Amino acid sequence: MSTVLVTGFEAFGHTPINPAERVARALDGRVLADTKIISKVIPNVFFKCIDVVIDAIVEVRPEVVVMLGEYGGRAVITVERLAQNMNDSTRYQLADNAGVALQDQPTVPGGPVAYCSTLPVRAMVKAMRKAGIPADISDAPGTFCCNHLMYGILHHIAIDELPIRAGWIHLPYLPSTAALIENLGAPSMSVETSLQGIKASIQAIIENTEDIQEVIVSRLQI
Amino acid sequence: MSTVLVTGFEAFGHTPINPAERVARALDGRVLADTKIISKVIPNVFFKCIDVVIDAIVEVRPEVVVMLGEYGGRAVITVERLAQNMNDSTRYQLADNAGVALQDQPTVPGGPVAYCSTLPVRAMVKAMRKAGIPADISDAPGTFCCNHLMYGILHHIAIDELPIRAGWIHLPYLPSTAALIENLGAPSMSVETSLQGIKASIQAIIENTEDIQEVIVSRLQI
Amino acid sequence: MSTVLVTGFEAFGHTPINPAERVARALDGRVLADTKIISKVIPNVFFKCIDVVIDAIVEVRPEVVVMLGEYGGRAVITVERLAQNMNDSTRYQLADNAGVALQDQPTVPGGPVAYCSTLPVRAMVKAMRKAGIPADISDAPGTFCCNHLMYGILHHIAIDELPIRAGWIHLPYLPSTAALIENLGAPSMSVETSLQGIKASIQAIIENTEDIQEVIVSRLQI
Amino acid sequence: MSTVLVTGFEAFGHTPINPAERVARALDGRVLADTKIISKVIPNVFFKCIDVVIDAIVEVRPEVVVMLGEYGGRAVITVERLAQNMNDSTRYQLADNAGVALQDQPTVPGGPVAYCSTLPVRAMVKAMRKAGIPADISDAPGTFCCNHLMYGILHHIAIDELPIRAGWIHLPYLPSTAALIENLGAPSMSVETSLQGIKASIQAIIENTEDIQEVIVSRLQI
Repeated sequence: MSTVLVTGFEAFGHTPINPAERVARALDGRVLADTKIISKVIPNVFFKCIDVVIDAIVEVRPEVVVMLGEYGGRAVITVERLAQNMNDSTRYQLADNAGVALQDQPTVPGGPVAYCSTLPVRAMVKAMRKAGIPADISDAPGTFCCNHLMYGILHHIAIDELPIRAGWIHLPYLPSTAALIENLGAPSMSVETSLQGIKASIQAIIENTEDIQEVIVSRLQI
Repeated sequence: MSTVLVTGFEAFGHTPINPAERVARALDGRVLADTKIISKVIPNVFFKCIDVVIDAIVEVRPEVVVMLGEYGGRAVITVERLAQNMNDSTRYQLADNAGVALQDQPTVPGGPVAYCSTLPVRAMVKAMRKAGIPADISDAPGTFCCNHLMYGILHHIAIDELPIRAGWIHLPYLPSTAALIENLGAPSMSVETSLQGIKASIQAIIENTEDIQEVIVSRLQI
Repeated sequence: MSTVLVTGFEAFGHTPINPAERVARALDGRVLADTKIISKVIPNVFFKCIDVVIDAIVEVRPEVVVMLGEYGGRAVITVERLAQNMNDSTRYQLADNAGVALQDQPTVPGGPVAYCSTLPVRAMVKAMRKAGIPADISDAPGTFCCNHLMYGILHHIAIDELPIRAGWIHLPYLPSTAALIENLGAPSMSVETSLQGIKASIQAIIENTEDIQEVIVSRLQI
Repeated sequence: MSTVLVTGFEAFGHTPINPAERVARALDGRVLADTKIISKVIPNVFFKCIDVVIDAIVEVRPEVVVMLGEYGGRAVITVERLAQNMNDSTRYQLADNAGVALQDQPTVPGGPVAYCSTLPVRAMVKAMRKAGIPADISDAPGTFCCNHLMYGILHHIAIDELPIRAGWIHLPYLPSTAALIENLGAPSMSVETSLQGIKASIQAIIENTEDIQEVIVSRLQI
């Protein structure tokens, strides 16, 4: 039986409840298509979040890491194609949960400009839409902690040549977050709908293992 | 025990399942704060829809009529403030379910330019937000069947001086509708979230009866 | 030679320069298709704005009144179909230039719910698009001073049975307003593009006089 | 006197006139702050567009290459931070002007995941806003010919270790394009406003040469 590590960021900024945390918790311990899911809630803190997920990888020894975050303002679940080596929380007028704001600073000085997700991005989006869940591919995971953690983990896996596929999925606001005056007019998605989408995504990851092996091989050759 | 008539439009255009129909059906027969809810599903057909709701009013004898429709593209539940005496389905490149498209034609020739909702619009929006459901007031219910039916029923109530409060609430697409390629990127709301919002709205209507009496009195004086 | 009165609101809120004022000033004194244009800049103050435009009507004795305002957030020029007898500046967290904020208060107590524009709305939009200017019909001029003034002038014309056609056109932000941090990401339109659109609109009004006579007649019958 | 090569894509898809071509042509031959601008219009064809710009670099021998394209749907001028080694025109339901549609195919097989712009992205955005032109940084130049050409040229410069700074700026639709029925509701920007923005950007590039030298040096070390 293989293992999927699902991580979800905790609350931050104008988000009292992070759908990523809610979905991660709801999946913890479940078995899907002979695959065990283990979940971790991650602190919304630059660099520390990377260490926490690396520790979880050591502990859980997963074949797949699916990282979840919230992308306020997006209407659909988005599967991120790549993460870049650049942090800018100032554009969102946001600091992380330790009070740190970054501008134009790399996650890994001297690291590659970007890493691609090693999850089957297109198959995941197709599977979600087939399940009736609005979803799309995204080419920009932002420049806050989500992009930072995605880059950090993909870099860790690349450097250590770990046999792990990893990538990022962004969830819209929860309805209760979009109901706050400061977020008024923003789209939202219930935790149940997001959960259904993530389950369909994980199913698609499991069913597309071979594709992924090629992706990993080709990526490591580069 | 008083009675609320809830109406919900059926499927139309690019909407295989209308959240209005789903929410109406889910509420049918329920009792909320000593108030009985009776629901009807309404054909998406100009003029016929007005007749069907008038028949339902005769049959059900409600104190309140809450009419529901779908407004694709909106991210939050919207409580409509007024309906106008003008139909234009051509701007949406849509015909009704009988194949009829209208442009710049009145619902009631010689009727007033617009009617105001006689529901406590602001209290309903506040109640939904308090319940964690994204909601807002809207000043434009569109120019298709929803505006048409809202106008038709408010006109009927005004002309016959019926002691009935009535108004309109628009729901976002269901997730499964927003997952269709032709609606891609559109916001959505699960039927459960919409249902919670409509319940909070009806509760607010029941609790704001006195306000409403004044509204009706003042409206009829005009 | 007939006369068109063009009015444009002054600066307000987060708008240092109102495109409506800029376009109105640019048109003042021009002659278009044997029609003279006279422009007035209007204070962004509830009720006072109505008085100022009524004074201008007495002074200028126009056959047509084209009122201009800014609608921040809209991407295209919008020709308003109707104005409602309700003011709510609180939803925009705005007060007028005299510091007054209104919520759910009528412009004319006991007045009709709404008045229709008596300008040839559809012909104006078609003419602008033909001239390469993005434009659309709108059914909601907001609930701040623009809707208020539009309602006030249409009410004045109706009550006094004046032989004047009148209506409202909304312009997007100027680029310099959209470049401000607090408006970041908002669409904009240059004063030259907006001016071209308004000229095409006025041309369409002049060419559609007969239609309009019918509109006025039918409206006054109601 | 140094030289800036400005490239602008030609018309394609639902864009009868490309603002990038219009702005490029308007700048051709101008001198700005002791810097000569030479412009080229580029065919909207995968791979061929890269060859055409490489030829122009050989011919013009510029110190800076500013590439321009249109990004329909965006409301402000966007300075792109990076380009990725992946093409997908199918998501836009678009083929290039030679009729070729790509999906999930690299521009350079085995090339790096992404290249960063070597222009002073933040300084350019600041300069445009200061000049009253709406502008922002973007992290996603799309997955059609613009991203493709940006990647191709940055790769060429990196591989050949050319002492050239290069990057991409996206312009909104022209008003005449946004006025077409198929683009209705989209934001736009006049060619004059876009031109002003690009001039402010080039000025900022010239004034931030030293910063850029560091960027190039650090990038080549990686």
